[in-house]
Amino acid sequence: MEKQSSEKKRPNRNRRYSKAKKRGHQGSGPRVSVIPLGGCGEIGKNMMAIETEKDILVIDAGLMFPNEEMFGVDIIIPDFTYLKKNASHIRGIFLTHGHEDHIGALPYVLAQIKCPVYGTKLTLGLVKNKLLEHPNLPPIEFIQINPRDKIKIGTSFTVEPYRVSHSIVDGVGLGIHTPAGIIVHTGDFKIDQTPVDGETIDFHKLAELGNSGVLLLMSDSTNVERSGYSRSEKEVGGYLDEIFSEAKRRIMVTTFASNVHRIKQVVEAAINHKRKVAVTGMSMNRTVEMATKLGYLDFPEGTIIPFEDIKKMPAKKVVVITTGSQGEPMSALSRLATNSHRQLKIQPQDMVIISARVIPGNEAAIGRTINNLFKLGAEVIYEKVSEVHVSGHASQEELKLMLNLVHPRFFVPIHGEYRHLVHHAQLAEKVNVLKENIFILDNGQRLELTKDTARIGRSVQTGIIMVDGKGVGDVGSVVLRDRQHLAQDGMVIIILAIEKSSGKFISEPEIISRGFVYLRHADELMTEAMAKVTTVVAESSKKASIDHGAIKSDLRDTLRKFFYAKTERSPMVLPVIIEV
Amino acid sequence: MEKQSSEKKRPNRNRRYSKAKKRGHQGSGPRVSVIPLGGCGEIGKNMMAIETEKDILVIDAGLMFPNEEMFGVDIIIPDFTYLKKNASHIRGIFLTHGHEDHIGALPYVLAQIKCPVYGTKLTLGLVKNKLLEHPNLPPIEFIQINPRDKIKIGTSFTVEPYRVSHSIVDGVGLGIHTPAGIIVHTGDFKIDQTPVDGETIDFHKLAELGNSGVLLLMSDSTNVERSGYSRSEKEVGGYLDEIFSEAKRRIMVTTFASNVHRIKQVVEAAINHKRKVAVTGMSMNRTVEMATKLGYLDFPEGTIIPFEDIKKMPAKKVVVITTGSQGEPMSALSRLATNSHRQLKIQPQDMVIISARVIPGNEAAIGRTINNLFKLGAEVIYEKVSEVHVSGHASQEELKLMLNLVHPRFFVPIHGEYRHLVHHAQLAEKVNVLKENIFILDNGQRLELTKDTARIGRSVQTGIIMVDGKGVGDVGSVVLRDRQHLAQDGMVIIILAIEKSSGKFISEPEIISRGFVYLRHADELMTEAMAKVTTVVAESSKKASIDHGAIKSDLRDTLRKFFYAKTERSPMVLPVIIEV
Repeated sequence: MEKQSSEKKRPNRNRRYSKAKKRGHQGSGPRVSVIPLGGCGEIGKNMMAIETEKDILVIDAGLMFPNEEMFGVDIIIPDFTYLKKNASHIRGIFLTHGHEDHIGALPYVLAQIKCPVYGTKLTLGLVKNKLLEHPNLPPIEFIQINPRDKIKIGTSFTVEPYRVSHSIVDGVGLGIHTPAGIIVHTGDFKIDQTPVDGETIDFHKLAELGNSGVLLLMSDSTNVERSGYSRSEKEVGGYLDEIFSEAKRRIMVTTFASNVHRIKQVVEAAINHKRKVAVTGMSMNRTVEMATKLGYLDFPEGTIIPFEDIKKMPAKKVVVITTGSQGEPMSALSRLATNSHRQLKIQPQDMVIISARVIPGNEAAIGRTINNLFKLGAEVIYEKVSEVHVSGHASQEELKLMLNLVHPRFFVPIHGEYRHLVHHAQLAEKVNVLKENIFILDNGQRLELTKDTARIGRSVQTGIIMVDGKGVGDVGSVVLRDRQHLAQDGMVIIILAIEKSSGKFISEPEIISRGFVYLRHADELMTEAMAKVTTVVAESSKKASIDHGAIKSDLRDTLRKFFYAKTERSPMVLPVIIEV
Repeated sequence: MEKQSSEKKRPNRNRRYSKAKKRGHQGSGPRVSVIPLGGCGEIGKNMMAIETEKDILVIDAGLMFPNEEMFGVDIIIPDFTYLKKNASHIRGIFLTHGHEDHIGALPYVLAQIKCPVYGTKLTLGLVKNKLLEHPNLPPIEFIQINPRDKIKIGTSFTVEPYRVSHSIVDGVGLGIHTPAGIIVHTGDFKIDQTPVDGETIDFHKLAELGNSGVLLLMSDSTNVERSGYSRSEKEVGGYLDEIFSEAKRRIMVTTFASNVHRIKQVVEAAINHKRKVAVTGMSMNRTVEMATKLGYLDFPEGTIIPFEDIKKMPAKKVVVITTGSQGEPMSALSRLATNSHRQLKIQPQDMVIISARVIPGNEAAIGRTINNLFKLGAEVIYEKVSEVHVSGHASQEELKLMLNLVHPRFFVPIHGEYRHLVHHAQLAEKVNVLKENIFILDNGQRLELTKDTARIGRSVQTGIIMVDGKGVGDVGSVVLRDRQHLAQDGMVIIILAIEKSSGKFISEPEIISRGFVYLRHADELMTEAMAKVTTVVAESSKKASIDHGAIKSDLRDTLRKFFYAKTERSPMVLPVIIEV
């Protein structure tokens, strides 16, 4: 929105929902605010603050992966300045489940904010694993919770976690009793009628909350563009079983390491077909080990065998579970696909099953892995050609069911890009939430609620913090712009030496370039460029005193124009003058 | 495939189809070879040579867009060295249709090879438009062809183009009579039973060719992963009509400029709903103008109005056709979405229809455009939530029909990544092409045919040529590696001045960095780095004479380690020594 036209300033026109109704009527009685610090207007870095005068409760602290223009950035976390400023009010961080987009920012938050962390057993297990990589954190108080617990938080909140189905086990949504009324936060969820562990989403708790009157529902919008129902995780088990029955040799299955139910179903299919299971890939090994220790995976002795033992087994007796579902270059599956796995080689007729979705942006990497596996003679089964994956997020009919069960007075769609939030708002309207009671929030936008009113309050600081190596927040727009420029057309450095005493140039200029042209074939271009530099220098030498700034700027302009005319490229041109 | 194990060397094990059967039995009689120079093992840069002793016929000369690691590269074209070496045998380039992945390399090929270019009216129209941007080409002989023509090419070939349906009008496939038998090359196609212009694929010609015995079929594999049939282009017209009937204000529709049938259907829906049509975006304007001139678009006078006139019209009376279906940042739609279009502003309740597929890699850009349009209050309709697009490529049932109609002796799947080619080979087997008669070719691999045999012959040089600005092929792995390195972590330059006569350092070292750390907050880091440089320099100054190479290498190693330890980043470290 670079230009502001007079049209744009008309109020209440460019939002369909209650976003623009700032400072509406405010009711009486106790107040509570919700403030998304991440996850509204984006998929990722989910974080939500719920606040009364005395207490702040934080839900989740997730990361997001950088977009294609954030060169060199490892991860992105929410700007949690607001929490730092109000640290004394924070009573705890509640984690809904153990995915990175819900727990990945935790080490960075806990480095600056001291408060207890609440989560279910597996979620805390994953967090503790993660914190091993951040040894300098202060000691942290972990509080393990169970669905249907009632947990007092500060003087304002009582939290009732309830079971949800999702693509990771032990996820919960939260019923939060506040002085102004009940807030339901769904976390990530789907409504799986036949979950692998038999534990459906807690319909009864949701019905009970709905029945007692819910003030606000905040619900997962990820899959709102999909009509109907998301298929049950158990269906994947059926497909795996079918596919396994056709396999002639080794079977390799890759999925997200955190998808314990999927892993469980793979192992069960293996047992069914009298195969042993070996695990490769660091994160997969870690998860299987932890999930077994915590009781989420439980197989007969001898089902899981050491990886090195598969060489001794007939190919027909082996299933390998591996990392690499996103084509990550260093993953076990990528190494298998490029024939560079140290312990295992793909053989013709091996079967590789990619039991995971393609995260947008990873299409090319996954495509390469699949092509390479086919080239080695493997049969590769993936989402596009089979039904070996189901989503962990609710589709439209499930979202409607959630809205109807909870039937909240106010509704805030969360966990989605703007378009998802709009579609979810439209869906809520269809199931009779009043249009004026639906709020599409931006990150940082505060929604103030009383028992019967809601209005947009004062926004708080939010945004992104880029993490690159050890640097948290030190890479900003300047560094990124330089990286983008360097990536596009490389750079040319011109070095001039000047005698300090005389102010005269005392050497030939030197030109160095990287990433611009292939130097062995660019002699002519560089000779001409040198002539340009010499001309500029000679011009400026005529002057009484040399103005470093002026000569640098002359050089930049001259060379930029020259290079563009010759090559239609615009390398970064960096003139350097050193005084000797 | 970095490591070669003994297993890998076993012959005939790691290919399911006849790929590895080099130098099989060769029959008698005249021979013909087919050599893919692009499009086998990739989607894009389609190019095929068909060769006898005397003549070479080239089919298509397409480009491909760079992958995410080819920083700064504009386009990729096939390495056509083989054609240059055999230029005297080339009798012509046949174009199947006017998409960039079939004609985009033409200006580069024609700059080096003189031969006539054959194509249908619209295809040649598009080519001529394209060549306007390459004014220095020698004069080119264009030969316009029509479906069912019989065109003698050299002494070896008679080509019969036949009509196909595709997402661009005036596409053809080729029946090629060679001394060894008939080769059918499908080009890109689908089998649309109800095409917009009433012209179905030429079933009768294909049946006639099939009946008279086809030696080799080469068929489009793009959509082989999709079961069933691709929906008819006409269905989109129905959906557009429905959507138009619900629109309350302006309607904007974006699609590929080359999709003339789609444009036709948009205009027809507009006429149905008594709306006028305005066009924005350079390529869209150009296509509509050309397609109208050539007779592919024909509407009642006054249907298309000048863009500036829409301001005078009621919003309910206007449809805007625009470029930007892939979220291209400078396109008309992107400018509308960011409120920076000079002539038009999106208003709440405007309707935007994205009637195009998402090309992989463009998800993020398109997503941003959609989100921005929603933020401006528009209703946005796109493939994920509606049926406003259909594919132009054949799905499995259509591919089977093609195989059955033509029932060739030999089969080569083309236009696909390796996985598509494998799936297409499996499909051909299902419809009774003999497994040993199916060949999966790599680019550059020659298939030699006689009237009853086929075998893999000697490969020819192929590969990619990267085009960056005016440079064709000068960006190679060295330049790209540098760009990737610079993009990831930026660079640090250290400059030292040495007195030529004494060989002594005569100035403070200078350190410059870009894209590495934010310099204003990195004083400490840079001071420490300077100390490291000083130490290295002091060490080497003790020696009798200064070895430039050694000191540079010391500086590089020292600083790399230092920076990595401090930041976990690995900038490019460039020591420069200048002599004064």
